[in-house]
Amino acid sequence: MKRLSILGSTGSIGTQALEIVRRYPERFKIAALAAHKNTELLIAQCREFMPSLAAITDESAYHAAKNLFPAGIRVVGGADALETAACLDEADTVVAAVVGCEGFSGVYEAVKRGKTIALANKESLVSGGKLIMNLARETAAAVLPVDSEHSAVWQCLMGSEKLGVRSEECLIGRRIKSTRRCVPQKSEIPNSSSLIPHDSKNLRRIILTASGGAFYGKTRDELARVTPEEATRHPNWQMGKKITVDSSTMMNKGLEIVEARWLFDTFDIDYIIHRESIIHSMVEFSDGTLLMQASYPSMEYPIQFALTYPDRLPASLPRYDFSKPLTFAPPDEQTFILPRLAKEALRAHEGAPLVLNAANEAAVSLFLNNRIGFVHIFDIVQNAMQSAEFPVLTDKKSVIAAHRLWHEKVLSDYKRFI
Amino acid sequence: MKRLSILGSTGSIGTQALEIVRRYPERFKIAALAAHKNTELLIAQCREFMPSLAAITDESAYHAAKNLFPAGIRVVGGADALETAACLDEADTVVAAVVGCEGFSGVYEAVKRGKTIALANKESLVSGGKLIMNLARETAAAVLPVDSEHSAVWQCLMGSEKLGVRSEECLIGRRIKSTRRCVPQKSEIPNSSSLIPHDSKNLRRIILTASGGAFYGKTRDELARVTPEEATRHPNWQMGKKITVDSSTMMNKGLEIVEARWLFDTFDIDYIIHRESIIHSMVEFSDGTLLMQASYPSMEYPIQFALTYPDRLPASLPRYDFSKPLTFAPPDEQTFILPRLAKEALRAHEGAPLVLNAANEAAVSLFLNNRIGFVHIFDIVQNAMQSAEFPVLTDKKSVIAAHRLWHEKVLSDYKRFI
Repeated sequence: MKRLSILGSTGSIGTQALEIVRRYPERFKIAALAAHKNTELLIAQCREFMPSLAAITDESAYHAAKNLFPAGIRVVGGADALETAACLDEADTVVAAVVGCEGFSGVYEAVKRGKTIALANKESLVSGGKLIMNLARETAAAVLPVDSEHSAVWQCLMGSEKLGVRSEECLIGRRIKSTRRCVPQKSEIPNSSSLIPHDSKNLRRIILTASGGAFYGKTRDELARVTPEEATRHPNWQMGKKITVDSSTMMNKGLEIVEARWLFDTFDIDYIIHRESIIHSMVEFSDGTLLMQASYPSMEYPIQFALTYPDRLPASLPRYDFSKPLTFAPPDEQTFILPRLAKEALRAHEGAPLVLNAANEAAVSLFLNNRIGFVHIFDIVQNAMQSAEFPVLTDKKSVIAAHRLWHEKVLSDYKRFI
Repeated sequence: MKRLSILGSTGSIGTQALEIVRRYPERFKIAALAAHKNTELLIAQCREFMPSLAAITDESAYHAAKNLFPAGIRVVGGADALETAACLDEADTVVAAVVGCEGFSGVYEAVKRGKTIALANKESLVSGGKLIMNLARETAAAVLPVDSEHSAVWQCLMGSEKLGVRSEECLIGRRIKSTRRCVPQKSEIPNSSSLIPHDSKNLRRIILTASGGAFYGKTRDELARVTPEEATRHPNWQMGKKITVDSSTMMNKGLEIVEARWLFDTFDIDYIIHRESIIHSMVEFSDGTLLMQASYPSMEYPIQFALTYPDRLPASLPRYDFSKPLTFAPPDEQTFILPRLAKEALRAHEGAPLVLNAANEAAVSLFLNNRIGFVHIFDIVQNAMQSAEFPVLTDKKSVIAAHRLWHEKVLSDYKRFI
């Protein structure tokens, strides 16, 4: 039985994770649920799952709702509430389903305690990938991707689950604390610097697939007229607003490239447009052959796999029917510049992806509040990447401080771009 | 360095295997080359690779050519020559690239000696799969598929090569004699009855892809007019005559289904039409997600992978360009009945696939000699499968005898069908 702490339980990933817990109650116990301010749903979830801890990060929502929870549940609130949920001793697995750099601190603390992280929060690896990776090596924490793309790459690099389990038993499994196969011995942890253990010798490149978002094929002039309402509708995936805008700007792919760099310890990451969102990503081996992972576009699959790993259990969807032709096309990197900027950031400076991400977060919030146009997101991020100085990231505090600094910088400076 | 004995060195697979040896001479030594009667090419190959042994199975070709080989090469001929090449102590890896049931004996003897078999001969598993599987478990021989479809499934079940290697070191590698990682201990050999070690717990089904052959979409009436010349041209693959006809009747897929049953120890094997031959096969896991293996349609990839496993080395082809839409369609099992008959044979009787294969071999030779029409291949195989009695296969001799018996039976009886 895995004991879960779900950071972001009222969001898209969080509610889907709870759906899986509902389906396989014998496999999971909910230890903690954390939300930002949707206390109505959080309270309902608490009534159903009776965690030990409920966390509400929004101070005023916390004060308004703290007495409405069922008896026996400890309710915490405010800025540190997420960390409290992430650190809870009782939880062995932390589902990091918070959007934005707010998730970093919780992920960091969970990794510090050697927990298993089902990671849906892209930004923590984008902002502090190296710190988290080094910490995970020290504590033998396992970081399992929830993103459909990284889950696909993980599965392509792992192959048969049972092979996975077996090799785990020898080398990797001891990193998965909740399976308790063996106690991790520092000297025995594979000397790999990736978070997903694998050897890169036979890997030529990772190819992430991209749906292309809602505005695939549009020119910059056409994009200039895009409204927040248009940008928050996605053709294939149901997701939160920020992440749907990131998908429509293709920043999403940029963040995924950075994430993949840390998860799989390689710079050889390309991406390709695949409108149907059936192939979720692939790997190209050194002989030129490919492995691709495929399913209907539903987050149910990768969330469930991260939660039930190393087992696979039936999902709720029907068998894939193979009815669609699967097509691929090169991306338009002249119009959609963000993935390219992300690749450049990776090589430019350890702190550059943090700046990229902070600038994008600020720009997206400005866009959603109708303060800037859609294409200004591109301009603001590009401008931030031309900065003369990038932050040096030495610890958790420096990551959070740098993120705030750059976020504020963009907010105070954005009028230059409109 | 792997020391190869290539059975069928002058055929399509054999010559491509030698091309790989040419490309990576530091990895391979040719110990033996065996051919049927193309002694001109065999002699040229012997001059180049200087094996210890050359084998010619055709008696008269042997007598005509035996004195034309370079000095220092032992030349053997006749019915047992293939076995002699398969058993050669000096060879640790036997490339079984002979077409037809003639390959069975060589494969059997190589497995008996615990060698690694790069298996391109479909018929040995089709005729004597259970015998070979049981023998391989006793001797810890490794059977690595060369067929593009089975290689794809193998790769989907294995994932990362390095993960493969690691899990191998723990459990599987000791079966690969030539890597000499550890001496196989009978009790340590995983208690799996498949030839490719994997656990079936998370595997829902294998989905073989089928190009559909040269006559995809044709009706039985249209097929009735097909000539041997038309049936020996394949749209995507360059292969020998027998195997190209098998592809056009889709018997090929039937043989592959039987082969997969023994390689991966499952009856859950389906197939799907994929005209582009880019996805070489796939597996569906128990959560409904798929892994697919892909490359340009070239046998270079799976041959090389079987030879260099667990490593992957650059192949000669350019990167896959993703230009084609990948399409899938259900097969027409009413017209192309052979794969369905193969699935039925698997469940009907241990000896039924042998009969299926023997009847098909005989029917194809009759067709190639213009004695029967194309669709009579279907009828002859179907009639054989309606036999009241199937052979009981207890040892090598019984397999060979049963194959001959059924082959002869069809040859003497075929006029009933035209």
